[in-house]
Amino acid sequence: MATFDIVISGGTVATASDTFVCDIGIRDGVVVALGLDLAQDAKQVLDATGKYVLPGGIDSHVHISQPSGDGIVMADDFESGTRSALFGGNTTIMPFCLQERGKSIRQSLIEYHALANGTCYTDVSFHLIICEPTPEVLGQDLPALFNDGYTSFKVFMTYENLRLTDPELLQTFDVARDLGATVMVHCENEDAIKFLIGKHEAANDLRPGAHARTRPVAVEREATHRAMAFAEVVGTPIVIVHVSNGQAIDEIAAARRRGVAVTAETCPQYLVLTAEDLEGMDWEGAKFVCSPPPRGTEDQAACWRGLQDGTFELFSSDHCPFVYDSVEGKLNPKGAKQFKHIPNGIPGVETRLPILFSEGVMKGRIDINRFVALTATNHAKTYGLYPRKGTIAVGSDADIVIWDPKVTAPIRHANLHDGADYSPYEGLEITGWPVTVVLRGKVMVQDRALQGTKGDGTYLGR
Amino acid sequence: MATFDIVISGGTVATASDTFVCDIGIRDGVVVALGLDLAQDAKQVLDATGKYVLPGGIDSHVHISQPSGDGIVMADDFESGTRSALFGGNTTIMPFCLQERGKSIRQSLIEYHALANGTCYTDVSFHLIICEPTPEVLGQDLPALFNDGYTSFKVFMTYENLRLTDPELLQTFDVARDLGATVMVHCENEDAIKFLIGKHEAANDLRPGAHARTRPVAVEREATHRAMAFAEVVGTPIVIVHVSNGQAIDEIAAARRRGVAVTAETCPQYLVLTAEDLEGMDWEGAKFVCSPPPRGTEDQAACWRGLQDGTFELFSSDHCPFVYDSVEGKLNPKGAKQFKHIPNGIPGVETRLPILFSEGVMKGRIDINRFVALTATNHAKTYGLYPRKGTIAVGSDADIVIWDPKVTAPIRHANLHDGADYSPYEGLEITGWPVTVVLRGKVMVQDRALQGTKGDGTYLGR
Amino acid sequence: MATFDIVISGGTVATASDTFVCDIGIRDGVVVALGLDLAQDAKQVLDATGKYVLPGGIDSHVHISQPSGDGIVMADDFESGTRSALFGGNTTIMPFCLQERGKSIRQSLIEYHALANGTCYTDVSFHLIICEPTPEVLGQDLPALFNDGYTSFKVFMTYENLRLTDPELLQTFDVARDLGATVMVHCENEDAIKFLIGKHEAANDLRPGAHARTRPVAVEREATHRAMAFAEVVGTPIVIVHVSNGQAIDEIAAARRRGVAVTAETCPQYLVLTAEDLEGMDWEGAKFVCSPPPRGTEDQAACWRGLQDGTFELFSSDHCPFVYDSVEGKLNPKGAKQFKHIPNGIPGVETRLPILFSEGVMKGRIDINRFVALTATNHAKTYGLYPRKGTIAVGSDADIVIWDPKVTAPIRHANLHDGADYSPYEGLEITGWPVTVVLRGKVMVQDRALQGTKGDGTYLGR
Amino acid sequence: MATFDIVISGGTVATASDTFVCDIGIRDGVVVALGLDLAQDAKQVLDATGKYVLPGGIDSHVHISQPSGDGIVMADDFESGTRSALFGGNTTIMPFCLQERGKSIRQSLIEYHALANGTCYTDVSFHLIICEPTPEVLGQDLPALFNDGYTSFKVFMTYENLRLTDPELLQTFDVARDLGATVMVHCENEDAIKFLIGKHEAANDLRPGAHARTRPVAVEREATHRAMAFAEVVGTPIVIVHVSNGQAIDEIAAARRRGVAVTAETCPQYLVLTAEDLEGMDWEGAKFVCSPPPRGTEDQAACWRGLQDGTFELFSSDHCPFVYDSVEGKLNPKGAKQFKHIPNGIPGVETRLPILFSEGVMKGRIDINRFVALTATNHAKTYGLYPRKGTIAVGSDADIVIWDPKVTAPIRHANLHDGADYSPYEGLEITGWPVTVVLRGKVMVQDRALQGTKGDGTYLGR
Repeated sequence: MATFDIVISGGTVATASDTFVCDIGIRDGVVVALGLDLAQDAKQVLDATGKYVLPGGIDSHVHISQPSGDGIVMADDFESGTRSALFGGNTTIMPFCLQERGKSIRQSLIEYHALANGTCYTDVSFHLIICEPTPEVLGQDLPALFNDGYTSFKVFMTYENLRLTDPELLQTFDVARDLGATVMVHCENEDAIKFLIGKHEAANDLRPGAHARTRPVAVEREATHRAMAFAEVVGTPIVIVHVSNGQAIDEIAAARRRGVAVTAETCPQYLVLTAEDLEGMDWEGAKFVCSPPPRGTEDQAACWRGLQDGTFELFSSDHCPFVYDSVEGKLNPKGAKQFKHIPNGIPGVETRLPILFSEGVMKGRIDINRFVALTATNHAKTYGLYPRKGTIAVGSDADIVIWDPKVTAPIRHANLHDGADYSPYEGLEITGWPVTVVLRGKVMVQDRALQGTKGDGTYLGR
Repeated sequence: MATFDIVISGGTVATASDTFVCDIGIRDGVVVALGLDLAQDAKQVLDATGKYVLPGGIDSHVHISQPSGDGIVMADDFESGTRSALFGGNTTIMPFCLQERGKSIRQSLIEYHALANGTCYTDVSFHLIICEPTPEVLGQDLPALFNDGYTSFKVFMTYENLRLTDPELLQTFDVARDLGATVMVHCENEDAIKFLIGKHEAANDLRPGAHARTRPVAVEREATHRAMAFAEVVGTPIVIVHVSNGQAIDEIAAARRRGVAVTAETCPQYLVLTAEDLEGMDWEGAKFVCSPPPRGTEDQAACWRGLQDGTFELFSSDHCPFVYDSVEGKLNPKGAKQFKHIPNGIPGVETRLPILFSEGVMKGRIDINRFVALTATNHAKTYGLYPRKGTIAVGSDADIVIWDPKVTAPIRHANLHDGADYSPYEGLEITGWPVTVVLRGKVMVQDRALQGTKGDGTYLGR
Repeated sequence: MATFDIVISGGTVATASDTFVCDIGIRDGVVVALGLDLAQDAKQVLDATGKYVLPGGIDSHVHISQPSGDGIVMADDFESGTRSALFGGNTTIMPFCLQERGKSIRQSLIEYHALANGTCYTDVSFHLIICEPTPEVLGQDLPALFNDGYTSFKVFMTYENLRLTDPELLQTFDVARDLGATVMVHCENEDAIKFLIGKHEAANDLRPGAHARTRPVAVEREATHRAMAFAEVVGTPIVIVHVSNGQAIDEIAAARRRGVAVTAETCPQYLVLTAEDLEGMDWEGAKFVCSPPPRGTEDQAACWRGLQDGTFELFSSDHCPFVYDSVEGKLNPKGAKQFKHIPNGIPGVETRLPILFSEGVMKGRIDINRFVALTATNHAKTYGLYPRKGTIAVGSDADIVIWDPKVTAPIRHANLHDGADYSPYEGLEITGWPVTVVLRGKVMVQDRALQGTKGDGTYLGR
Repeated sequence: MATFDIVISGGTVATASDTFVCDIGIRDGVVVALGLDLAQDAKQVLDATGKYVLPGGIDSHVHISQPSGDGIVMADDFESGTRSALFGGNTTIMPFCLQERGKSIRQSLIEYHALANGTCYTDVSFHLIICEPTPEVLGQDLPALFNDGYTSFKVFMTYENLRLTDPELLQTFDVARDLGATVMVHCENEDAIKFLIGKHEAANDLRPGAHARTRPVAVEREATHRAMAFAEVVGTPIVIVHVSNGQAIDEIAAARRRGVAVTAETCPQYLVLTAEDLEGMDWEGAKFVCSPPPRGTEDQAACWRGLQDGTFELFSSDHCPFVYDSVEGKLNPKGAKQFKHIPNGIPGVETRLPILFSEGVMKGRIDINRFVALTATNHAKTYGLYPRKGTIAVGSDADIVIWDPKVTAPIRHANLHDGADYSPYEGLEITGWPVTVVLRGKVMVQDRALQGTKGDGTYLGR
């Protein structure tokens, strides 16, 4: 009689600290055994010999179906976004529920759940974007939502319609401290950016490259310093998301030496893109517009060192896809002919893991355990999904990805599964791709072919 | 026939770089000769043998007759304030003309000039405090005022009624860059302070010591970082006034390494007072309430190192006097029984130079040339009074102070000349006091006795 | 039929990254299964319900039976040393084989193996101390020894008879790079120490406290910088052992930012002792003489931050025991009445893990996974024992310790098992002690009582 | 009757802190008056209208007639060296008296004085290079020589025949502290350099460019750190000479923050040359071989910042000239065909001031006062020549240079006056050249033509 629903046999299993060869026994969607010769007791066996067996990726920074102002719709809904994530080796993503001005967060959540419900290929859990922290929101809504399992909030220091003022940041941090909630902070100084946009407009410098020049390192470093100073004053931990450069990294290291509890995240765009990419011909630069913008090669090197030395504990995609070409009546917001109208964001949920695997693990910059920590375990620990998610251990969900380190292929958008019409990483040669993905014991992708069904993904309360 | 109106003979003359023994020949209020044996050609001779002969002190950070909210009046008008400055070895002070909301700066200047006119014992030149930088102020008033010789502006990042918002800071910096004006910045984060005041009020912690605890190093460091980031973004030099601690000093040094043009100032209160002083019995702590507050002994040491290694180029008093005891119907604002109602500021225009001379020069921490640079020359250079003021050189105004390094006496408010009723430095033993003060060739104080007349001081356009 | 020799059931298992509750199946000395309900298939069951189940501690920095000059013998031989280690929750220790001048390392190894053979209670693996790196040693002996599994070398920058010169350091690093060997470096500047010893002797300052004052932070920081500069020049990774202070930590962090591959270690003495302890009455200070010496409380805090933020990857004891009282004809080297004759070293192999568990995990400074990483996993990875040692995973040796976090008792030397006659940590209250220790599947200690036999420990080639 | 021997009239006089227009009255070789309309009382008038009038340059780091091993003689003796210095705007140079092994320093001094006596065009004062600090040298010779006015010692951490060991450095620093002497330190780690030379030789990489690659930043940074650590341990101030890069600058700044008294010097080669220059075709790279070697453009920028922010107080030439082409039977050591045989050193005593004036003052990087401080005043203060030398003040020697900021001409070795046969700065366009040089009241160069005589320069005891 079969003891296991599935056994993954013979692979090289890696956790955030360990690497070992064994079989993994799965029953009822959960890992129930790590051992030898388990295949004989299995209904189904996935042979992973010669391959890596890793926890499913968790992408804790993903934008899906989020309105971006001016009526622009993101290129991914939950179906396409989670399908793309799944093919990229992820089993959980954490998109945002955006508070809309004049609407209760609760109501927004109902709408987001409605969009996600029954359409997902991965598990999903929401962060709440707080952009209107009224006394009612802070005093009643957030505590109630926290109790309902919405335990992480994101705040912005940039974007006219999203940014919090300094008093709002302090009050939101204060509530988070009292609740024990996690606060993610997008650190760029909106006022300094606006000042620089004005200067560029006055000089009629309107091309995509101006996006990077109006958001220089100084405005990110300043906001990073300020956010951490507020965390210090309030006495609460924060997450600095999508750090792009060495100066901000130095600020984070210095704050830690002062005893401030800061977790830091970086993204693929800061490892393999540069500000030069925004200067591309014929408005192609628009394809690389995101905030903070990619920087130079020295900042890329600083980000790699931050991944190596532990300054960064999170590696996310900040997936935020928009369509570049106007096809079949679709909007083409990325085609805007003035830098400040180009929506900020690039697709990347499917390419995040392959880029880090290929550029990091295969090129010897980080080991496979650090890869697992950066892409799965630390996300689960930071946002309260651990130990259910983020590792391969007895009792954890059987969210498992089999990676073949011998498969080499360039990134081609034609082969990706998102709703955008380009990849900023087009042509980047990748060694090591995920081939099989198991979600709570169900084989969703096998040998790079879809097996799962829309709706197999579920919502994760925390 | 006498060639010189006055000759100061035989003293040890010090400039910001040199020390030499010679006679100084003065004619028509100006130094016309440095040489030997000049006394024979003099109408009047001041024998300075065995004494230091230094440029008159310039105190570029002094508050006089400034309203401080709640109807509180400062304890010094121009007469008492400049008399006190004079006895403290100063020949020029730079008070502030405060823009009042709803009133033109031009009108305020008329009023301040009216107050100062005919009443001063030292020369005077105004900085403008900008608290309402409307488009009209920025686009018309400041350029016109700059052309009229009002070339330095001060802005606040704290105090509800004075603080500029971030966009206002950026715009004011931008105008200053275009004009070539100098901007002084008071760096403390008002919103974080308010947050902490709220916490302390909620805890019913209302004593003077709470003033220091609600303005911790983090709020000063944050605002310092932010102001310098704005200077970096705009591309204009700024002056960070009254720096109190090592963390802010480290930020300033780091900004300079990034190429930001920052001048920094510290004050006596950060060398010889500590936050402990605010915890004094019976609300005596109110006597030490100023912003930023004094810190600990390690921060004192950091400030000394900053004076030694060149991080600080300016040493000012931030004289801002209030009455502590209610005498003869006077208001006694310092006696307020809730920390947030105690006006921020302490007297010090008369004790600034003796404290630095005694604690710095006589204790071997700095040499006499650095003393001159920190107390006179650098102020003149920073604010456009050089070479008329700030040094002893042919062609410069004969603003000269004779110091006797052998006079030892404690600071006693009874011996001072300001309008307050206490000194925060009461009892501090001082070795080295100014004994004779010459203003533009006129002996104003001789052997510590007043010779000059109210109105001998004049206004200095720049 | 029993599938497992032993099952450890129901405990909270922790690795360097994960924490989970499951049974551990052991067969033939190796972990063969992690799963649920394994006890039914076991010959022997150890119930760990409510307790932590951790990988056996690896102490990679232990001195045993090493001559220390002047005929002084260490207080521990392999029997007492490994027994003490075992009771302290260790299953592997890494002592040193000391090259003796004029004797081949090979010959020294024969002698050390003879001492260890058949007497150990834990597994053992030797580092080689290189103090005479002749061309023959570098060119022939070390490559041959490396091939035989002696893959880690230790070098000293202090101690007259042990220190290498700068050319010797460079050459040894160079050989290590070519071999892929690991080099541990004791960083203190011998010449500066000798200079200071001379000054103290001239001042007749000979008490134990002078030990700390003649080895100030500057001499450790200097040597740390120099060793890392050599590693940078040669291009080889090194391990900086027993780092004691914040300045050295800052140097290490800075070197990493420059891309130097440095692993850093600290020890219990730098967390809970201070230089003040050496100033004790009646020469009791001698009990705390080790090198580098303990520092002040700020440096303790810096070491804790280094353990938290990842600067330190190794936490070792630097166990180096000597007898303090002359009892039964034993030598009492610690009783020397001149600081420079007091042998450098203190016992600690049995107290290392309890101190970090109690002060670190139980006081919330680090989590249980970081504890495992610092005390077991990282040692195995750094020195080539992984994955056989250092974790609980399928295929790894069943070296497992059951910790009871509810046992509270002070450290008393009377309860320890080493060969010294005192503990520098006497009286320190500890919450959380190891109660059961399994070595390669054999229960060596059960409920704090010895079950194993001398000789159960074996030598580990690498 | 003429009161003044010479009056320099109408020029813009600059000291290290002040700039003013006045006449300078000189009598008996000394400045006796600064005033207006002094020309009428003068025997001779030098009209400086429209020109700068500056203190004569002091070059405190110059090698003259010094043997450099292998029988190589420097290209300058005291006659040519001081003539070249004079034309470059200098009135004092400080060459080295090199202790030779097996010979008393006293004897060496007799020989150097004999070489200098009657041959100099500028004043001269010797530093002593200590390379054999025997107990007799430290205990008897140096104290006696110090009393005779030889108050500055130089020590080397590199060069086989010159370098001191660490104990020798400590002992020499200790003697200097007791005496109050100044110690200059050449900071490069000889052993690491030798190690790298061995590697390059093994790789048959023998061209001039290998000189820079075998002396990387790490070996200079390491030695800088070590020298300052010794200064910290001993408690004595030191001068770090010829600092070449940003990492060493950072070390110096950090040491100062720790309270170490360090003075730092940089040189023209680190501002306008790079390591690329050593890679020149046909062994032309040999013309740029000096130690430390020039670095990259980022390090040039760091050196400029160090000059601006006060990290550097001294700007010297490190003039050390050798002949490149074999002409008329002369040796041509710079033509050596293996990098390690190329003598370390380049000419520069005549171009130091024009380079800093043109690249620094005229390009707005530093002001004229900082120029004076860096090139004259600080040298005099550091090495005990102040106030006799280094400034223009009543009582100081009349060592004065008139600079014409309107003269523009490239550096051409054909126009220089040293004994080498090339300039490493050939072709560099210079705006601002010295036109007239006065030495103790004697016009040595007038309108760029020699007026003075060999032997006009004298020796300066201190």
